[in-house]
Parts: sequence; structure tokens; C-alpha cells
Amino acid sequence: TICYLGLHALQHRGQESAGIAASDGKRIRLFRNMGLVRDIFNEEALGQLPGELAIGHVRYSTYGTSTLENAQPFVIRYSKGFFAIAHNGNLTNAHIIRHQLVRDGAIFQTGMDTEVIAHLFARSKQVSVINRVVEALSQVKGAYSLVMLVNGALIAARDPWGFRPLVLGKLKKAYVIASETTAFDLMEAEYIREIEPGETLLITEDGLSSFRPFKQSEEGRCIFEFIYFSRPDSVVFGANVYEVRKRLGHQLAIEHPTEADLVTPVPDSGLPAAIGYSEKSGIPFEMGLIRSHYVGRTFIEPTDQIRHFGVKLKLNPVRKVLRGKRVILIDDSIVRGTTMRKIVKMIRDAGAREVHVRISSPPIISPCFFGIDTPTRKELIASHSTVEEINRFLTSDTLKYLSVEGLLNAAGNADGCCTGCFTGHYPVETPYDLDSYQMKLFDQVIIERRGHS
Amino acid sequence: TICYLGLHALQHRGQESAGIAASDGKRIRLFRNMGLVRDIFNEEALGQLPGELAIGHVRYSTYGTSTLENAQPFVIRYSKGFFAIAHNGNLTNAHIIRHQLVRDGAIFQTGMDTEVIAHLFARSKQVSVINRVVEALSQVKGAYSLVMLVNGALIAARDPWGFRPLVLGKLKKAYVIASETTAFDLMEAEYIREIEPGETLLITEDGLSSFRPFKQSEEGRCIFEFIYFSRPDSVVFGANVYEVRKRLGHQLAIEHPTEADLVTPVPDSGLPAAIGYSEKSGIPFEMGLIRSHYVGRTFIEPTDQIRHFGVKLKLNPVRKVLRGKRVILIDDSIVRGTTMRKIVKMIRDAGAREVHVRISSPPIISPCFFGIDTPTRKELIASHSTVEEINRFLTSDTLKYLSVEGLLNAAGNADGCCTGCFTGHYPVETPYDLDSYQMKLFDQVIIERRGHS
Amino acid sequence: TICYLGLHALQHRGQESAGIAASDGKRIRLFRNMGLVRDIFNEEALGQLPGELAIGHVRYSTYGTSTLENAQPFVIRYSKGFFAIAHNGNLTNAHIIRHQLVRDGAIFQTGMDTEVIAHLFARSKQVSVINRVVEALSQVKGAYSLVMLVNGALIAARDPWGFRPLVLGKLKKAYVIASETTAFDLMEAEYIREIEPGETLLITEDGLSSFRPFKQSEEGRCIFEFIYFSRPDSVVFGANVYEVRKRLGHQLAIEHPTEADLVTPVPDSGLPAAIGYSEKSGIPFEMGLIRSHYVGRTFIEPTDQIRHFGVKLKLNPVRKVLRGKRVILIDDSIVRGTTMRKIVKMIRDAGAREVHVRISSPPIISPCFFGIDTPTRKELIASHSTVEEINRFLTSDTLKYLSVEGLLNAAGNADGCCTGCFTGHYPVETPYDLDSYQMKLFDQVIIERRGHS
Amino acid sequence: TICYLGLHALQHRGQESAGIAASDGKRIRLFRNMGLVRDIFNEEALGQLPGELAIGHVRYSTYGTSTLENAQPFVIRYSKGFFAIAHNGNLTNAHIIRHQLVRDGAIFQTGMDTEVIAHLFARSKQVSVINRVVEALSQVKGAYSLVMLVNGALIAARDPWGFRPLVLGKLKKAYVIASETTAFDLMEAEYIREIEPGETLLITEDGLSSFRPFKQSEEGRCIFEFIYFSRPDSVVFGANVYEVRKRLGHQLAIEHPTEADLVTPVPDSGLPAAIGYSEKSGIPFEMGLIRSHYVGRTFIEPTDQIRHFGVKLKLNPVRKVLRGKRVILIDDSIVRGTTMRKIVKMIRDAGAREVHVRISSPPIISPCFFGIDTPTRKELIASHSTVEEINRFLTSDTLKYLSVEGLLNAAGNADGCCTGCFTGHYPVETPYDLDSYQMKLFDQVIIERRGHS
Repeated sequence: TICYLGLHALQHRGQESAGIAASDGKRIRLFRNMGLVRDIFNEEALGQLPGELAIGHVRYSTYGTSTLENAQPFVIRYSKGFFAIAHNGNLTNAHIIRHQLVRDGAIFQTGMDTEVIAHLFARSKQVSVINRVVEALSQVKGAYSLVMLVNGALIAARDPWGFRPLVLGKLKKAYVIASETTAFDLMEAEYIREIEPGETLLITEDGLSSFRPFKQSEEGRCIFEFIYFSRPDSVVFGANVYEVRKRLGHQLAIEHPTEADLVTPVPDSGLPAAIGYSEKSGIPFEMGLIRSHYVGRTFIEPTDQIRHFGVKLKLNPVRKVLRGKRVILIDDSIVRGTTMRKIVKMIRDAGAREVHVRISSPPIISPCFFGIDTPTRKELIASHSTVEEINRFLTSDTLKYLSVEGLLNAAGNADGCCTGCFTGHYPVETPYDLDSYQMKLFDQVIIERRGHS
Repeated sequence: TICYLGLHALQHRGQESAGIAASDGKRIRLFRNMGLVRDIFNEEALGQLPGELAIGHVRYSTYGTSTLENAQPFVIRYSKGFFAIAHNGNLTNAHIIRHQLVRDGAIFQTGMDTEVIAHLFARSKQVSVINRVVEALSQVKGAYSLVMLVNGALIAARDPWGFRPLVLGKLKKAYVIASETTAFDLMEAEYIREIEPGETLLITEDGLSSFRPFKQSEEGRCIFEFIYFSRPDSVVFGANVYEVRKRLGHQLAIEHPTEADLVTPVPDSGLPAAIGYSEKSGIPFEMGLIRSHYVGRTFIEPTDQIRHFGVKLKLNPVRKVLRGKRVILIDDSIVRGTTMRKIVKMIRDAGAREVHVRISSPPIISPCFFGIDTPTRKELIASHSTVEEINRFLTSDTLKYLSVEGLLNAAGNADGCCTGCFTGHYPVETPYDLDSYQMKLFDQVIIERRGHS
Repeated sequence: TICYLGLHALQHRGQESAGIAASDGKRIRLFRNMGLVRDIFNEEALGQLPGELAIGHVRYSTYGTSTLENAQPFVIRYSKGFFAIAHNGNLTNAHIIRHQLVRDGAIFQTGMDTEVIAHLFARSKQVSVINRVVEALSQVKGAYSLVMLVNGALIAARDPWGFRPLVLGKLKKAYVIASETTAFDLMEAEYIREIEPGETLLITEDGLSSFRPFKQSEEGRCIFEFIYFSRPDSVVFGANVYEVRKRLGHQLAIEHPTEADLVTPVPDSGLPAAIGYSEKSGIPFEMGLIRSHYVGRTFIEPTDQIRHFGVKLKLNPVRKVLRGKRVILIDDSIVRGTTMRKIVKMIRDAGAREVHVRISSPPIISPCFFGIDTPTRKELIASHSTVEEINRFLTSDTLKYLSVEGLLNAAGNADGCCTGCFTGHYPVETPYDLDSYQMKLFDQVIIERRGHS
Repeated sequence: TICYLGLHALQHRGQESAGIAASDGKRIRLFRNMGLVRDIFNEEALGQLPGELAIGHVRYSTYGTSTLENAQPFVIRYSKGFFAIAHNGNLTNAHIIRHQLVRDGAIFQTGMDTEVIAHLFARSKQVSVINRVVEALSQVKGAYSLVMLVNGALIAARDPWGFRPLVLGKLKKAYVIASETTAFDLMEAEYIREIEPGETLLITEDGLSSFRPFKQSEEGRCIFEFIYFSRPDSVVFGANVYEVRKRLGHQLAIEHPTEADLVTPVPDSGLPAAIGYSEKSGIPFEMGLIRSHYVGRTFIEPTDQIRHFGVKLKLNPVRKVLRGKRVILIDDSIVRGTTMRKIVKMIRDAGAREVHVRISSPPIISPCFFGIDTPTRKELIASHSTVEEINRFLTSDTLKYLSVEGLLNAAGNADGCCTGCFTGHYPVETPYDLDSYQMKLFDQVIIERRGHS
């Protein structure tokens, strides 16, 4: 149940599928399905997951196709018992290791990079569980924040660069691990500290032991967690996300002062930055766009005709507020630009005199290879268009982005962050044209298994 | 499809069930189910609803139990063809008429007051459709905003007091009817005017005719539509809801000035009033509570243990923002007080120094008999507690409500509104102890029909 | 539960839908669905149907379309409580009465003739339940074997001609009613007697009372119950069905002696007659065709291509038995002739030298208006073809039918049977071209209600 | 589609789950589920399985638990492409090989012995597909009739003892493989020959090649296929099953002549033997028991109370036929004796004067380790009771079994059959207490995956 609450608080990190694996010390039971946490787990499902240890996972696919096969946690039986693993991040050498393992006769069940770790663990000749885990992790590269369940032990591990967050908390006498502190809030657990880059934790009945088998080579913390991905109420990499976002709004007001009648956010992603912008600039804050509560991030409408209405189903302008006004429209980022273009049009149609788009991050010019589901470079509008071209595409009056320096200053974490998506420079070597390569390697396996209808 | 979009925009008015009835001039096809609009209608379902005329409905039950039987629209075959009806509001004499009809051998299929109108229509000896409708409506009392489909005609009607909103729009050459203008925004239809209290509209291929068979006895427009029920982007009773709510915030700041460090809303219901309060008072606006997007208004969690977490699943405090601060917490209303009590505790636990609750409406002391799903009088905390007692119950430092006069002034619609829930004075005589009487009359019929699992 | 067992034993009488209505003396609960008894009722469903009185129904549609709306029992609330009804048979004047009722403002929920009886019952001004039932039944014509549940009483009624069977049994101290005695066998109830044509039974806590309000005008017992419809282990109209069918085989051997090597039935419909034919003729009995147990009567295969294999999915020849042999193939009746044609081809393809088709009933030349689902006259091959033409169509060497006289003699019930389907003479006046008339009247109402998917 | 038809014809061999894997030369698509063939595959499912090669499987579990995981075919990706396998039979050394593979780091997905073959195939260092298959099969012992799909080739293999049947057919220009010839009848394919014990067939675009890598050590054909398992219309091990069963009836009449009034089978399993017994003895054949078509072999009723009625739901006596008679009751075998005891009681309750049970096979004293789902030795009534004791248990007047010699003579296949279940002597060494050992090894893995509800 506690695990359920935690997953619920992290629902924003993945809406494709969710799962929980629970151990009573002897057996592991797994329950997982496609869909949202609230739809997957009912009283019956939770009742079938007894035991004192559990790991959970919500997934959106950055690797492998979106099927039940690829839902996590992933559970196997190895020579000494059971091994369950849940993974946040992306490995950059999974395809090479997988290729070698298959050549040696290994049979893969899924298209996930995570399964590579399970095979390495199963094949390890090490005796102790912790040594098996370390041996397996020593062979993989890239981003991983992992929780594992091995017989009666819970293990957590974070890659040496620390791409994705992972935090340690305490609930009464038990330790809990989560991607974001918001999970602890819901569980009523106490936040202790970040699990450090390169650290591996072993949690057993005897308590917690920390291992640092890998050199912390360089800091790779994902700055996009601050900008968009984490919940505003979380503490990530040691800072409160809402405050960081408000500071990004302050910085945006400083870098790009604008004459206007009101500041309005794209709800809810631009809300904290808009409050910050309004505060710093003194221009009144208004909710010029209303968001429907009945549409989620991944909402899919039944017909093409209706999908076309996508943004309109989600957002609606308050005409009376916007009519005749000079509007500063704030959002956290622009990916393809198509949604923002529709929003600008919506605001103009509602009668706004001017629309000034202000983005609280720099232009995204390069894909993420470490766990954020950015599209291919070609689809990133800023990878091939200048700011002025984007402004014309959006049909806005002006468009301004935050600078990389402003971003790092406002984030207050300047040294240890990966800004690869804004600069094209990554802390770890990335495979050439990773996306298309993956496609060739794994996407041929189409296995369909259906449950009872 | 247009009808689908309209229902989507009105989803907030009812999440229990939804339905669409469509006519191709000869037949009426009905598709309805329990649940949300987006879950009920898929491409296949909409494909089965061809025709040029359609009416839709979303329902939350104020009358009759919550079963598929009671989903609307309600369709019958009468002697000259088909009659479909969708109803917003509550009749106050339905039980009396139903009793008479059953005694005469009428067979009722549902527990809804709406079915009474269908029987009166079917039994009418009038020849013309409009006369049949008028004869049926002349016998019922209470709140009704109706849309009906009779063979090839669309009919809309609003009760003489005008309790619930009903608006007329135009989409290309076709007329459209909806509860709120937000439906028109999504359809890209143009708003024309309110349908007036006591007015009946007949829309056929030949155009629109207006009938005013009933005297507009007195204005009964529901002020709660402004406070809570309508979407902020709608125009209701001629005014924009967001603006009214901001003005309520202004008025609240005038009536109850408070020394504090920040103003924060209960999202999203208190948002416009909080912006208004901040604007008028000059105290900074902050989002001290974050709302999860994965929980709807009617969200039901799988286990009791989890239901206990209700508010926590939905809202989480931003500790860093609240710690050590004097907080003005704004919401639109208090019904039972239990939710607000949890929110106050949540803000204190996050470290706030003081919590001042400000409500942008007066205390609710009496139930609604005209279509708002208020609980029984006993459950309304303000019906039996003073403001000071409620303040103690909430554990807030201070609690202040808006005055009835302030409300009416800010709403700018002072003469023509029903404020029965705040005053106990209703524009129409209400049946003594209506709720329990209904129970006796209809609740014995338990018919279960199950679809394929 | 007892009711469940009874329905199970009568599954062969209808596979479209099934339902049970149960009364605890105060309320009636109804559970019904499309499909087979075993698929509809699970432990949970039966648990929701407590109470000491219950009626059940299995349906195949002879009237009204095949939807959940039209599943029985049909339950209404009338002025003094609840009324549930389950109906076997067809009324011949339902459309006329329905027309009148609708003109008077009655609202029909379904397309079933059965609902007419419910309306007549609800509108009756009689005080006692039994008088209401009698008044309602006095207005309808045609075939009805009914069970009704009114508040705490169980009522059974059979039309004056006795078209469809209805039997009374006793289980410990309780009376039970069923279409066939095979239901009693499963319930372990004792068979008492037929309910007589024109008889109405009232069963209450005080015991059983018999009423005979209607003159037994003429005997109309359906001879097709013997030939095909009833189970061989049932006692129908006082005779054992298996024995009657064997005697039909005897009679067939007497009327049409044939030189051949073996007698083989179309399983399972021709089995008893084939045993009888073999016994009387001395020609060896063999199972030359094997029936798959995984195909029911109403089996629907997924693709057209596979539907084409219909008979082959159900029956397969035993080549070794048939090769080089002169085969007498026995079945109970021929409707369209298309299935028999495929079977004859199958037997020839398996190597049979000669195929002699022998049918243990006369040619069907006219449709049934009283509850057997025969197709329209045009589709009945014997309505427009001579026996010799049918023989050519079937590609059999010879084809012989039993005579009407032989049938009546073998059935031993010669006076009191309806043989309308063989002779075109019916004991009750039938509406001209009933089928198409019905279509015009009711089939426009297409109401779709879907359960949760 | 052809594959669908074939599975349908073999439905009697397994009702737990079914699946089809289809290859278009490049990819393999798998569709499988729990339940019956007709319920699993609809038009949509078959449409998703294009390609020219397909293998299918129906399963009842003799090994591993009954879950979707364990449904076949089983598909993997190995270093050179895809490998799909469907298996009939049981390996006797699977647990030993699996243990070794897991120790070496192999990850097993299922509890099936079949997966062992897939791992051996994936790990083989052989280059050609056929050599990989042969190397894998050379390491396993026990019963296997296999079909495999490897890239564009279809491979079939039968173990050296030939325990389970496997036949080769031709459909137009394509080769087809099936367990029984009845599958060919439905496909309209021509039967060519048995695949011989120890033979491996490779079918590619270039045609068919036969390999005989394994010595045909000794004949182990399962005589139980004749007695019970195969369909009567199949040709198995070169003989027609219906004819063999009739000859068993002849032999039974010769070994155990009995004075009686009628011979009646337990339908449908005892039908051919009863016809044979009647023919040889001259005692009339009657259908004294009627079988319901709405209950399958694996039928599960909703409540315990109803499960108790098991046999009664399936069979019902024809009282009129049995009353006062001396009855010879024929069945093919007795396993636990509990069902037969209920049938004997049912016949006595219907009024029979004497009940003489005659079984067309010898007493089953030992379990099957080669693919028939017999219970543990303890549950086999004949393993611990004499014939006289069983007779008393059944409450029959007399009980007689066929002798082993009579069985072999009548089967006409005396030399090459495994009669281990009747004699305890098996052609292959069997593991000590196999059943319980398996439990220890594999049953701890409880992985639950649920499809969408």
C-alpha cells in the first residue's frame, strides 16, 4: 500500500504502465499493467502483494516498444532465488552487451535495456548479492537510477554521473527509496538525503550499508528535471523545484523585460515561472487560459477529427481577460512548437492585441540519451530554426528564451548539471544516431500476449 | 462529433455517466454509459451515431440512484415517433405526478424525475409537438433546463425561474444549445444569447421559433454557478465567471483585510479569488499547494486505507514556500469542513506560522433543491455551527466568509439570483424534507442489468 | 441456485440470453445478460439474488431483436409492488394491443410481445393479483406458457390451446414450474403433472390454487417439441421424448424400408430415430459422423471464411466406417436443406457408395407462429419443392419423409397436436404475413445500451 | 486461418490455452490466451497473424502451472533470428538440464519443460538450423512431438520412442503437420504418413527433407490414444480410432459375456465400444443417458454447491428406457472411480434392476510420465484396490475390465505400444517421484501478469 501511494505521487514520471513487485522474503509477486496507477491497482490487486519489501515503477517508454512485456519491474529467477529490478534512465551501451549475450545463447524476453542488467546479474560468478550487482553495473554505461529486490534485500543504485534523481527516506523504522521527495510526502516518510552519484545502497533487516564502487567521474544531473519533469513540490538534487522555477521566471524578467498588460502562464507547466515573472516585473498575473481537469498528459482522443482539437480539449481562453490586452505568455519549454502555435492562435482569437512568448529555458537543440523522452533531432524545432524563425512559426509578436547562463545561475547548481539538450555536449559519450540503431536491433520482435477480455 | 466536443467541455458538470442521442430524422440512436466522456465514446461508438441532430448529457445524480438505467438522455417511442430528453435541474413535484401516473397503469423504467416529463409528453392529447411539450411542462414545478429531440426537431426549454443556465449558439448555419458557453468554445460555435427563463425554443429545418408559454414569475438564477459550479472560462447568466470570481476575491480583501506574507489558493477552485485577493491587498500570490493531475473530482481510491489519504493524493504542499510564513488560504466555499481541515493541517505541517482561511462566499446553511448536489442539512457544517466554531474545527488562526451583500454586489446580478443555500429562502416552494421522501418512493426498485464483462 | 440448475437443464431452448428474477417477498432483483447460462451466472451473480422465490428464462428471439433489452424475465413496478414475467411462446395479437396502448400514452421499453402483458396487468383495475392476471390474459391470443412473480406469489399460466409445454413439480415442500421435466431431474424435484391448457396456478405461502378462467377451446400441443425441440430425457405432454423419437424411427423403417449396409444418424438430432430404424430394420447401427463437443447450436465463428466451414467444424466423417458402404442417413427434420446437402457431400467424399436420407418427420411447408423459430416460408425448402426436387438438391440417392399419419400414430397423441408447420392448418387464426408486419411496427426502435467494456 | 481450423479439430487435446505463431519469413507474431480456440481467436486476432508459415498449440498442463506464461507456442529471439516451438509430450530430464542452465546464468521465463529445448537451441554452436535442433534434442529424454518455426523454415520432430502421434499431410502444394488426422479433415488436407519415431523433418521453400539422427530405440506408442485421447474419426499410429474402439467392445463382449436387457454407453466416451459390445452380444443398444451439449470437458461451475452436481449437469438418464431393466454400462476407462460411482447411482435411481459396468481397457495402476494428464498413483483407484473392491465402491452389480492381451490384440498394434499405465513398465527410465520433484523445483515462481480488464 505504501508503495502504491509512492507510485501515485510519481505518476507524472510515466503514464504508460505501472507495476509493483513485492517480496515476503521467499517469493516475489509481480503485478503490472498498462495504464495509470489508479486504474491498475484495486483492493484485490494490492491484497495479492503481501510482504514487507516492495518496489514499484511507472513507465513511459524511451527504449523498447510500449507493451505489457516492457512494463516494469522486471522479475527473474536466478540460481539463488529471485531478482526484481526497476529502472529510471537509459543505458547507452545496452545494444552492444545484448548482442554479445544473445550470441552466447541468452534468451531475452523484452525489448528493454533494463533486461541487460538482469542477465549480467544472473551470469555473474560472484557469490554475494552486492558483488553480483556491482559486477553487472560495472559493464553498463549511461543513466540508471535503480531499485532492486533480491531475496530479502532491497538494493538501490545510481550511475556515476547522477543523471536521474534518487532519494532516500525513512518511514518509521524502514528505509524508503524514490525518484522524487513528493513520494515521501504522500507516504508521510521523512526525507534523509540524495543517493549520491555512483553510490549503491544495500538495505536488509540489519540496516543500511553504502558502497561506492564507482568513481564519481563527473556531474551529470539532468537540468530538465528542474525545468519540466519533476513535480514543483519535490526537492530534487537538493533544491525545491517550485522555487527554482520561480527564480527562472525572475531571471526571464531580468533578461527580457517587456511592456505588457498582463502575464499569463500555459497552465500548469508555466505557472511558477509566470508568478516569478509577474513578481519581478510588476505586471499583473492573470489566468488567461483554463485547463480542463479531464485530460491527462498522454490523453488520446477517439477520432482523428477530435485529436485535431487536442490543445482545445485541454485549454480554453478566458476571453474577457484577454480581449484587447498585450499578453506575456509564459511556458517552460518548446519542443516541436506545434502546441505553442495553437495556443498563440487561441489567445489571438480571444481578442489579445499582442502576444509575447517567454520561455523559462533555452532552446532545445539536441535529443536526450539519458531518460527524457525527447523526439528525434529533426522534430526539435530549435535544432534547425533560429529564434526569429520560430517566432514567425508561432505567429507570436515576440519570442524570447532564457540563456544557458541564466538557467544555470537561477538553478543554483551550475557545476554539476547535464545541459546536453541545450548545448549538444553530454557528460558521457553517446552512440552515434542512437535512436535509429535501436530500431534496427530490437524492434523486429513483436510478441503479442493478450489477457482475458 | 460536435456533440462529443460539447460534452467534453461540460464534463465538470457531471462525471457519473454520459450519453448522446442522435437522430437522422427517422430513428434515434442512443449511446450511454457510466463514467467519463472520454472513456465512454470511442471512434466506433461515435460512428454508430450518425444523423444531423443530437443531444448529449453528463450526469451526477441528485435524484435516483447512480446506475446505467438512470443515465441520460432518456429515449422513448410515443404514438407519433421518438422522443429523447436530457435534463439539468430537479423537479419538486415529480413524486406526486409519478404516483398518479403509476396508479393509472404507467410503467416507469427509471428512478429519474425526468421520466415524468416523458410520460406527460406521451400521454398528451395535443397534436403539435410544441403543444405536447408545453402541456407536459405546465404540470411540473422546479428547476429544468431541457433539450429534447422529437422526430426531426430540437426543442430547448428553461423553467420560469431560470435556475440552471442554458445558452444558444450558432455553428455555421446550425443552432446549438448548451449549459455553458465553454461548450461553444470547443465546438468553435458563436454565442448568441441566454435562453430566457420560461422560454421554449423549437429548432427545425425551417429555423428557430421562440415560445413564452409561461410567465417569468421571478428570477431564480443559481448564484452557485458563479461561485463554484461553472467553468471560469464560461459566460453564465451574461457574465464571465473568472471575472466574477476575481471580483469576489477583491470584495473579500475589502471586507476582511489581513496581515500576512502570502496568499495561496486551494487549487484550482480558489485560484481566481486568490488572484483577486492578492491584487487588491498587495500581498504576494504563491502556489503553496500543488494539485496532482491524476485525480478527478470524483476520484475513488481502491482501499479504505488509501481513501483516508484523499486530500493528500490530490494536493501536496510546497514546504519551502510555506515554512515560517503567515498564510492566507483562499477557497470558494466550505461544505462539510472535513477537507478544509485536512488542508489547514497540511499547511501547518509544512511549517506555516499562521493560517488565515478566507472563503469567497457566505456560509452554506441550507440544501439545494434545484440541481446542486449539496448534502443534507445536517452535514452542512455552517447549518449548525457558528463561524467561530468552524474556525476551531478547522484549526485555522482565523476564518472569514464573504457577506451575502458583498456576494450579490460582486456578482453584479443582485436582483435575479437564488441564494437559498446561504439564506434558506427559495424562489419556489420546496417539498418538506424532500430527500427522505424520495427515498421512500423510488428506492425500492433495484434492477440490475450487466453488460458483458 | 435451484433456479440456476433448472435454467441449465433447459439451455437447449434458448442460447441468446438468460436471466433470473428473485423475490424476497418485498423486492425483486433481476440479473440477466446475453449468452449461455454457464457464462452469465457466477457465484457473485447468484449471491446477489437472494430470496425464496425466483423465475428464470432462456431466450432465443422469435419476436423483437436480439439485445439485452429483450432478455427476460421482464420486471416492472406497478401501483401495488413488483411484477416479473417470463414467457415462452408467441402472441398473435400483440401488435394490435401495443398500438392501442401506445396511442393512449403507454411507454414501451422493449420490442417483446411479453411487455404487452405487463402493461395490461399494470393497467388493470382489478384488485386481486389473480384477477389482474386473468384480465390481462383474456385480451391476448396465441401461445403463452408463463411464469410470473408478483410480490410474494408465483403464478404460472398456459394458453387455452396448450401450445408450449409447462410442467409442475415439487421439491421438498416447494412447488416448481418448468418447461420440461429435465429441469426437475437436475433440481432433484419430483414431477407432478402438466399444467393444463387454459389453467392458471397461484402459488403462495398458503399453497397452490388452480384457476381455469379460459375454456380449453381446442388442443394445440406442438408436435415439434417431440420431433426436435425438447430434450430426449424429458417427459413432454405426458410422453417420454426419447421413446417417441425411437418409435418415429420404427415407423420410418416400416414406411420406407431400404437396402443398405448401415444406418447412421446425424448426431445428435437423429440418434434416437436411427437406433429405432436399425432395431426395426435389422441393419447395423454405426456412428459414421462424429460431433465435436466444442461447437454449440448457435456457434458463430470469427471469419466468413471459417463460417463457410460450419458443418465441418461440427461434424466429421469416420472414413473407415463409410468407405464403399450403402448408408442410410437419419435426421429429424430438414429446414432449408443446406446443412443436409453438406452432410451428404461429406459422406460421399468419405467414400460411401450410396446415401439414402430418411427424415423422421414430414416436410415442413409452413412457418410457426407459436414459438418455434422457423424461417420465413420462402426459406423452407419443402414449401416450394417436391420431395424429388429436394432429393436432387441434397444430391442423395433417395430421400424419404415420414407421413403425417405415421407421425401422429407414433407420437400416440394424435388428437391434441398442432401440426401447422406440416399442414398449414393452425388451431388459432394467424395474422396475415406476421413476420414482415412486425418488422414495420417495432424494428425502428434501435436503442443501444452498452455495459462497461 | 488454416492453422485455426487445425487447432479447432484438436481442441479435445487441450482446453486450457491455445496459441498460434505465424511467420512471414522475417518476423514471428504470436497470439495466445487462456481458454478455448473459438473464444481466443476472432477475426481481428487472425488478421494480425499474416504470413505463410504458422504453428499452433492447444494445451492442458502436465508440467508447469496453468497460466498465460505457460501457453504455447513459445517464441524466442536467438542470435540468428526467431525460434518458435510447440510441444506435445513430457521430457523426463528437463529438471536436470534446467538446473544446469540456470546455474550458468540462463533466465527462464516459464515453468515449462519446453523452454529447456529453446535454451539448448539458442546456446548451440552449430551453424545450420537443423544441426542446432538435433544438438538440442540429443540432450533431452522422454516424449516429444514438436513443431518449430525458425526464420522461414518449419521443422517437425518426434522422439525415438514415438510416444505421441504426429502426422504429415499435404494441402495443395504445402505440407502440414498435426497431432491427429482429424485436423487434416477440417483443413481439407490429404493425409500422407506418420512422422516416424526418431525422425526430424525440415520443410522449406525447397521442399521436405527427412533426417533420422536418433536410433529408433524401441516403440513407445501410447495405447491410451486409442482408448480415450484421440478423436474417433482420427487415424492414429496407422489405425482408425473408431474401429479400434468398436473392436475393444467386441473383445469385451467375448471376454465378459453378460445376461442383460440393454447395452448403454457413458456418452460419448463409451459410445463406439458399446456399439461393438451390442453388435457382438446381440443385446439391444440404447441411449440410456443423455449428454448436455452445454458442458465441456473442463467445465467449471460457479459455486461449490453446483459443482457438486457435476455429473448431473452433464448427463441425465432416460427413465423410461432404464426402468426395470438389466443394464450393461460401457465406458472406456476408470480413473478415480468417483464419476462412475455417480453414474451407477443415477442409473439405479432411474429404476434399473441391475447395473453391470464393463470397461473397454484394463485397470489403470500407474501414472503416465509421457504426456497424459493422469493423477498421482494414490488417486488411481485401481492402483490400490482390487476389481472386486472397485465394484463395491461403484455399487454396481458386476464390474469387468478388458485384459491387457485383449487390448493389444484388438488394437492390432501389439508390439509397438507403451502400456505403462496398465502394467507399470515404461519403455524409458522415469524419474523417481517426478511430480513432487517438479513442484519443488519450479513452483516457487509466481509471476502474475494481467491483461486489461
